[in-house]
Amino acid sequence: MKAEGLKIILSGPSGSGKGTIVRELIKKEHFILSVSATTRLPRQGEQDGVHYFFKTKEEFETMIKDDELLEYAQFCDNYYGTPKTFIEESVKNGKDVILEIEVQGALQVKAIYPEALFVFVMPPTLTELENRLVGRNTETPAVIAQRLARAKEEVAFYKEYDYVVINDSLEEAICDIETIVAAEKLRSSRFKQEIEKVWNA
Amino acid sequence: MKAEGLKIILSGPSGSGKGTIVRELIKKEHFILSVSATTRLPRQGEQDGVHYFFKTKEEFETMIKDDELLEYAQFCDNYYGTPKTFIEESVKNGKDVILEIEVQGALQVKAIYPEALFVFVMPPTLTELENRLVGRNTETPAVIAQRLARAKEEVAFYKEYDYVVINDSLEEAICDIETIVAAEKLRSSRFKQEIEKVWNA
Repeated sequence: MKAEGLKIILSGPSGSGKGTIVRELIKKEHFILSVSATTRLPRQGEQDGVHYFFKTKEEFETMIKDDELLEYAQFCDNYYGTPKTFIEESVKNGKDVILEIEVQGALQVKAIYPEALFVFVMPPTLTELENRLVGRNTETPAVIAQRLARAKEEVAFYKEYDYVVINDSLEEAICDIETIVAAEKLRSSRFKQEIEKVWNA
Repeated sequence: MKAEGLKIILSGPSGSGKGTIVRELIKKEHFILSVSATTRLPRQGEQDGVHYFFKTKEEFETMIKDDELLEYAQFCDNYYGTPKTFIEESVKNGKDVILEIEVQGALQVKAIYPEALFVFVMPPTLTELENRLVGRNTETPAVIAQRLARAKEEVAFYKEYDYVVINDSLEEAICDIETIVAAEKLRSSRFKQEIEKVWNA
């Protein structure tokens, strides 16, 4: 029987680089991305079913009503949420499922999946975050100011997470997350079957 | 200010190879070994103050009385114990202190240092353990039988540890422990000062 995969909850302010980190991680075979549902409009290049399941407000509210979502949150007038079934099946198949979730949503998930790994990705400084948001060139100054204010609010929640990864160098941040996942697989709670079989203990 | 080091409690049955693992780990600069005190006689090549502080029964009992020991246990008619001061000073200086402690003693330490990392080193199988003990050629068959019985008893305590490292390949076992230590340094609780300074969060 294959050992169960991990559920990895990744949060971080807009501009923390968590999106890039996730794109790199899922190139490795054992990681898989949980695809979220959202009512926000696709950005350029975003594909339905790959980056998000893009839903209308009405469709999203039906998913809520039918309890198909692990968590959901409203942010800048849009819904974001996480369909359940995909995660639980992937974990059973030994995959480490990455859930990229806003802070609000992550706190909801903690109550449901207390065994999940909670990782908070941080930009190294507020100035660096501002540079990244400006450099992205996709948002108005007003939106950037709003995102910076929100980033400060979100950072205050880092304590609710198990681990903090400061994304100063992308390679190191990825390595940090792989280290966290590898260590978690050495948790004594994961050895029950093996030890009972070999040692009758 | 230097970040505090970790306290790493390493246990495992006689023959699990934890001694070899420790010798390899302390070749790396950030690790340091906590030297235990014992009343057992030195084995060939063992040096006082390096492998153990070798004490008489009377000396050891004075250390107990003066509360100089973090923990102590009796095993095969000998005392084994861990002097405190050395550990706490090393950790303050940023060193990761490895404590090689019997299961009984480790459980006592957990109450005093709940923040320590508890790692249980296992031989892959009982047969492999027997081969190692026989191959060591330092113990009588009766002592080997006693050690095997004790190993089975000790393995039953693996659940009290945070992590299990199965020592099938020495290199992998060392890498596992380094992974565990690296992940632990990414615990959110260790980022308080840094985040408060940069983010005022």
